[in-house]
Amino acid sequence: MGREGILIVVSGFSGAGKGTIMKELLSRYEQYALSVSATTRKPRPGEEEGKEYFFKSREEFEQMIADDALIEHARYVDNYYGTPKAYVEEQLARGRDVILEIEIQGARKIKKRFPEAVLLFVTTKDAQTLKERLLGRKTETPEVIEQRLARAVQESEGIEEYDYLVVNDELNVCVAEIHSIIESEHRKIKYNMELINSVREELRNFSEGE
Amino acid sequence: MGREGILIVVSGFSGAGKGTIMKELLSRYEQYALSVSATTRKPRPGEEEGKEYFFKSREEFEQMIADDALIEHARYVDNYYGTPKAYVEEQLARGRDVILEIEIQGARKIKKRFPEAVLLFVTTKDAQTLKERLLGRKTETPEVIEQRLARAVQESEGIEEYDYLVVNDELNVCVAEIHSIIESEHRKIKYNMELINSVREELRNFSEGE
Repeated sequence: MGREGILIVVSGFSGAGKGTIMKELLSRYEQYALSVSATTRKPRPGEEEGKEYFFKSREEFEQMIADDALIEHARYVDNYYGTPKAYVEEQLARGRDVILEIEIQGARKIKKRFPEAVLLFVTTKDAQTLKERLLGRKTETPEVIEQRLARAVQESEGIEEYDYLVVNDELNVCVAEIHSIIESEHRKIKYNMELINSVREELRNFSEGE
Repeated sequence: MGREGILIVVSGFSGAGKGTIMKELLSRYEQYALSVSATTRKPRPGEEEGKEYFFKSREEFEQMIADDALIEHARYVDNYYGTPKAYVEEQLARGRDVILEIEIQGARKIKKRFPEAVLLFVTTKDAQTLKERLLGRKTETPEVIEQRLARAVQESEGIEEYDYLVVNDELNVCVAEIHSIIESEHRKIKYNMELINSVREELRNFSEGE
């Protein structure tokens, strides 16, 4: 395609359906690459190395920090989470749009380091729907659901720092909207300077030639 | 729809097909309203009052300037051109996206007065195509075509001041892209604060209630 890749941060409430959205986006369009985070937390049953996360020891993770091998990292409770730099840079260089599914603290750091990154926040159409989705999972205890709702309150405080709000009411619509936002970003002037300069030069030649 | 209207400026090379694009956009989607400029130039054959322009005498136009009834105006050669304020404000208030088809000088003034306006620049995929389209019109003398190409050179210098570049290679694709850019703009956080604040409040109530 010859076009520049865009760095996309996707955050959103737990229960808003980010995971499903990412899966759909990646399966429908070839242009996206999903960054896999590194973490020191233990794998949960069914989680695979390199799929959900790259599982690292604390020593390994701290070495990555020391080597500047992460574009952002944060500590939650007792574990580190971070975004390995190599994969992101490699995919962007290949013209792919790289998606980071990370939380607000990480999003903030990305925006600081890559001001052209596009930050999307995914929400349900209202809080009631969010609560129902969390209840519907049945895998979570009431305490966990309460914690998640409390966390959603906190997360909601940071929404203004994002660029776009996407409502996941109907999955297909939501996925199409995200794709459309990214495609529109590619139309920004800064990503089209090559074409602009070539038209300019050609015009100048015509103008001088006649 | 209850959503805020967006002010859209469309500029582009003469011959890039802005007129046709506008017509398609307006006929396909109800959300757009096209602002009609006021001018002191004389109507050309076939031009109708209130359709292509509002035709004004110099005195009337200067009175509009004095009354602050124009959101921007400029003088080309011996004529005034300007955007009447009332229509734009009324349509925006009704939630419609208002399109101004104006040149770079006007676009600059709009961006200064309305920093949230979205500025689109329409181009052909290359300068050769532009030249061919101008030649194909056959209504223009070679001198006029030369003038237009010379002007295109000038116009091309200002492209960086726009937000988006749209290539009019295939009309349908181009119209869909413009619509998609505007829809994406509506997803920007600033236009969704009502929803965000309502989700926030609901979440807080859940969190406190339990």
